Amino acid sequence: MIALDLIGIGTGNPDHVTLAAIRAMSQADLILLPRKGDEKSDLADLRRQICATHLSDLSRVVEFDLPLRDAKTAYLDAVNDWHDAIAACWKATIDAHLPGGGRVALLVWGDPSLYDSTLRIAARLGITPRVVPGVTSLSVLTAAHAIPLNDLGAPVVITTGRRLRDAGWPADADAVAVMLDAGGAFSTLDPQGVTIWWGAYLGMPHEALIHGPLAEVAQQILDTRAALRAQHGWIMDIYLLHR
Amino acid sequence: MIALDLIGIGTGNPDHVTLAAIRAMSQADLILLPRKGDEKSDLADLRRQICATHLSDLSRVVEFDLPLRDAKTAYLDAVNDWHDAIAACWKATIDAHLPGGGRVALLVWGDPSLYDSTLRIAARLGITPRVVPGVTSLSVLTAAHAIPLNDLGAPVVITTGRRLRDAGWPADADAVAVMLDAGGAFSTLDPQGVTIWWGAYLGMPHEALIHGPLAEVAQQILDTRAALRAQHGWIMDIYLLHR
Repeated sequence: MIALDLIGIGTGNPDHVTLAAIRAMSQADLILLPRKGDEKSDLADLRRQICATHLSDLSRVVEFDLPLRDAKTAYLDAVNDWHDAIAACWKATIDAHLPGGGRVALLVWGDPSLYDSTLRIAARLGITPRVVPGVTSLSVLTAAHAIPLNDLGAPVVITTGRRLRDAGWPADADAVAVMLDAGGAFSTLDPQGVTIWWGAYLGMPHEALIHGPLAEVAQQILDTRAALRAQHGWIMDIYLLHR
Repeated sequence: MIALDLIGIGTGNPDHVTLAAIRAMSQADLILLPRKGDEKSDLADLRRQICATHLSDLSRVVEFDLPLRDAKTAYLDAVNDWHDAIAACWKATIDAHLPGGGRVALLVWGDPSLYDSTLRIAARLGITPRVVPGVTSLSVLTAAHAIPLNDLGAPVVITTGRRLRDAGWPADADAVAVMLDAGGAFSTLDPQGVTIWWGAYLGMPHEALIHGPLAEVAQQILDTRAALRAQHGWIMDIYLLHR
């Protein structure tokens, strides 16, 4: 029998882990730590650092290489195939290291509910996991800028860069939070009257923040994003738009 | 000089506090702990419990009575007046207990960015606070049900019960998270094809969860909510709708 914990660990700052996350880590018989290739090694490094800080026995931490997503297939098909492949990786690694069963844990960037695939991958293995909620990158973004996510009593739309680019500004919303943007979907909007609060590498020592009227700072964000990506080899950024 | 920390402490489970929250608490010269009247004493009790667990010197924790909101005035006017009154309370309590200045902290339920007033109250005092992000009740809800907030690559609307009741199902969204519902705004929707995941007292020992097709469980949620409210004297609940 396999029990599975999906443990939200926050976004970049190791002090954003909760006491519940630390407790769940300590209860795990096996912690699966995905490697995403050299260009995102900072993400694996953060997980390694959190394990090294809070676990007395690191032999329970096993790394595995994440399969690559097919960039040539249609997006949703490619993502579904990719989740199948990751599920097979999890199963092979669990079978190899915990043949008698036990409690497996994955440390999930941010919170497992928000634009994360681990719940869908667990479902492919027929497992209902225990989820330990974590601090989302949206909370880290708004904290860094010291701003609320919503206007008083007003709604907020959380969406993706892909969707913003394809469908434009969401209806019925003056506040839009954008995640998973491969780069600059905000530049497809009419910037008139729009303010942006942008952040990259949130919670990390090299966190970068820019905010201002979109018309004035859009190019600065694009230039900064390109420079940081070249410097670090990868970038993760999100932003909040208000109009 | 007054420095102000707004510290997200999660929603009901004291183990949902982060290491960063504990550190910020320990650095504060004064922690303001609001009392909301007897009916919500559980909320003050949770803050007291977190302080008692993580602070060696409880003399730095000072309680104050929150003013009441005028229920007779229009909603946004009443909220704005109420925030003015709370700001005056903060200032009087800080002046009385920290006349020479220092670092003040407030422990914020959930995360300070999401349907919380402390950032707006701080702005009334001309202070830009340091914000420590916390686990939101939305993350606790989705964790308790072990579900994702969003469909694959799809947007999510976060809105209020008041808004859902007044404006109906938000445009362009198949997933809607509802907070601050004074009671049963979901019952104003056409339930056909809608699934609800509901939670009350999230993270607490008496957490209550119900999920299912809205047409089948709406009445059960309304009945459960009324019974729990009578039993505990207060209730805080949120829910996620998918169609």
